[in-house]
Amino acid sequence: MTMTMTLVDGPGLAAHRPAFASWLGMTNDITRTFLAAGGIPGLINMAGGLPAPQTYPATEIAEIARRAIEIHPADVLGYGPVEGLPELRDALAQRFASPRLPLTRANVLVTAGGMQGLDLLGKVLIEDGGLIAGQFPTYLGALDAWRPRGPVFRNMVIDAPGFDPVVALTGAQFAYTVPNFSNPTGRMVGLEARQALVDAAHRTGTWLVEDDPYGALQYEGAPLPRMIGLSAEARPDRPYDGPVVYMGTCSKEIAPGLRIGWVIAAPGMIEALAMAKQGSDICTSGITQRIALDAMAAGLVERIRPTILDTYRRRRDALCAAMTDHLADWFDWEVPLGGMFVWAVAHDPSLDTDLLLPHAMAAGVCVAPSSVFDASGLNRRAIRINFTLNDPDTLTEGVRRLATALMTLQARRR
Amino acid sequence: MTMTMTLVDGPGLAAHRPAFASWLGMTNDITRTFLAAGGIPGLINMAGGLPAPQTYPATEIAEIARRAIEIHPADVLGYGPVEGLPELRDALAQRFASPRLPLTRANVLVTAGGMQGLDLLGKVLIEDGGLIAGQFPTYLGALDAWRPRGPVFRNMVIDAPGFDPVVALTGAQFAYTVPNFSNPTGRMVGLEARQALVDAAHRTGTWLVEDDPYGALQYEGAPLPRMIGLSAEARPDRPYDGPVVYMGTCSKEIAPGLRIGWVIAAPGMIEALAMAKQGSDICTSGITQRIALDAMAAGLVERIRPTILDTYRRRRDALCAAMTDHLADWFDWEVPLGGMFVWAVAHDPSLDTDLLLPHAMAAGVCVAPSSVFDASGLNRRAIRINFTLNDPDTLTEGVRRLATALMTLQARRR
Repeated sequence: MTMTMTLVDGPGLAAHRPAFASWLGMTNDITRTFLAAGGIPGLINMAGGLPAPQTYPATEIAEIARRAIEIHPADVLGYGPVEGLPELRDALAQRFASPRLPLTRANVLVTAGGMQGLDLLGKVLIEDGGLIAGQFPTYLGALDAWRPRGPVFRNMVIDAPGFDPVVALTGAQFAYTVPNFSNPTGRMVGLEARQALVDAAHRTGTWLVEDDPYGALQYEGAPLPRMIGLSAEARPDRPYDGPVVYMGTCSKEIAPGLRIGWVIAAPGMIEALAMAKQGSDICTSGITQRIALDAMAAGLVERIRPTILDTYRRRRDALCAAMTDHLADWFDWEVPLGGMFVWAVAHDPSLDTDLLLPHAMAAGVCVAPSSVFDASGLNRRAIRINFTLNDPDTLTEGVRRLATALMTLQARRR
Repeated sequence: MTMTMTLVDGPGLAAHRPAFASWLGMTNDITRTFLAAGGIPGLINMAGGLPAPQTYPATEIAEIARRAIEIHPADVLGYGPVEGLPELRDALAQRFASPRLPLTRANVLVTAGGMQGLDLLGKVLIEDGGLIAGQFPTYLGALDAWRPRGPVFRNMVIDAPGFDPVVALTGAQFAYTVPNFSNPTGRMVGLEARQALVDAAHRTGTWLVEDDPYGALQYEGAPLPRMIGLSAEARPDRPYDGPVVYMGTCSKEIAPGLRIGWVIAAPGMIEALAMAKQGSDICTSGITQRIALDAMAAGLVERIRPTILDTYRRRRDALCAAMTDHLADWFDWEVPLGGMFVWAVAHDPSLDTDLLLPHAMAAGVCVAPSSVFDASGLNRRAIRINFTLNDPDTLTEGVRRLATALMTLQARRR
């Protein structure tokens, strides 16, 4: 804050601007690069976590939007309650409740997409040097959201031998997990590990974040129980008041452009997050909240899900087949049961995927290097490949280009 | 952060949750109270800054929304660029540019309402203990937005005799002003003071925030030049790169439910704010951005403005007439030339408007006490009365109830 940068302010006026906050010097603009990659002609973007636009139910949403604004003009065009439209909070409470997990409106906060839930959580739980126990590797958007709060990360490799959730959670402000088809690895956290994390949260008191944007995108097998449900089993008699903070979003099941997400948690946590939301954007647009509510009520989510699942399953299979043909000499990977990504780890521990990226861009393909999923930026041996945005032929061509980039990198290293 | 609160987590499980961030203990939920006041039957809400719902062009917006989603499904339903829809950024650049103030898309960030601009500004400029020179009294939403960043405030009473902008701005990360019909006082900052603030910003290098939600709500007289325009006069040859950070919103000229605002500033500041926005909500909904763009392009703002101005002018006059009839024994005020509020200062310096509030609520009326516009909470001699939400008869009745509350308070003090 005492550093300044010099800008020329006009003839004869040299102004010394106050410095930007220090976290800006520790960040990267990779998400903006991913979003902008769509604008580069001919580039195959396998980096971001973008859905297939052809799955968006545009005609239905257009009509839902028109009716929502005509029928509820004061609700949707005015300021709404900070916590969200009461009807949407009720609908979400009902959707995620079970006999063992009683939920009311007081357990629900509506957010501007899943990302805002992460931002608000950082605001209410992290002060400079505060400790986060984060599932490693870690969703880069979560790292982005918390960087301005100056946290310290303790990496949790949940499926590593000897991983002890109680040790991991002790002293942390919260633990962060993506149990379903984790971003970036595509892995599921198994039932035993979920139960152990919940038990550790109950024992240590640490908040346990269950970030679940991908739960609905399961292509094979049965879903595993949510941690918030496992946490609730001990207390079926009153609205959930335990340590799990569950987060979800419309982005993967309807469309990201709605920017509607939700947090389901103890009423005291919802209150704190609402205080933070009041100072962040006052409230989320009533227009998009009402569209989400009416789309859910009309069964739109269930109606489009088979098409989404079928589309993404075929794309995942095409990507993995092309990887077997072209990338098996360099990388290992697992075929994910759901989600949007394949995580490929190089055989050669000295392969630096940060160095691969410019060659990939030059060859006309973009993937996400593993360094961006590590708060310390040290993990450089893997790449995250998205399979939801592009059709099978484009994915195959993208993998071919990636193989070209790998050969170029290898030639340079010799 | 080392404090804990004890919650009972289930039979036999006493969990010690990590403490919430310390700023939560220093805040108030007055904005939520204002927004919720709409739900209390019979209460006349003159506290918040809410527009008159009957001014919302609901039918037009409903049709604009339908067409926007049908015509641009991929744009509005997908993730968009962090900085905003390029066409909306261009339209805003064009709207605020002048021959002396050249603006391009690089000068513009689209935000989730005006509030998000304040939140992002705090993220990029404030670290613990950072100094803000804030026009005093200060918009409570700005105090809310910056509280999680731990700032220190230097109060600027801009029209006080001897006010020296250079002294005020020196050492501050930024200066915060609402030059048009300031929230809460309704005052305009005069031309001479605007020029002096701009000169001081150029001389000290300090960023100068010109928050302008109310500029379009002027009921009498001619508008004064924007500070960003005054700042630009020295440098007509390239996109604006000076210290003024201008902020605006659709909330007062179309409808707050769109949650669309904007920041116009030097490209380097826009870049920094975009990095903060990436980690806050990724991007603003394309649906609401496109509605704002199409509404502006269709001339909707200009078409509804005469009705808005006429409605609010009559409401302001009704409020001030009722105040003259019922409140002149207690308060002084100026009739504001624009905006949404009358600021009434008690004759008696010992009148505590925090103590008035519960009596007002009991009498069936809600106003904003001055303490919430002071970072230190010490200013307790005034009230802010909104005149835009209620019709003239309701305003008159609200003032009568306020007089009743004052008499009750007075009787108790004796």
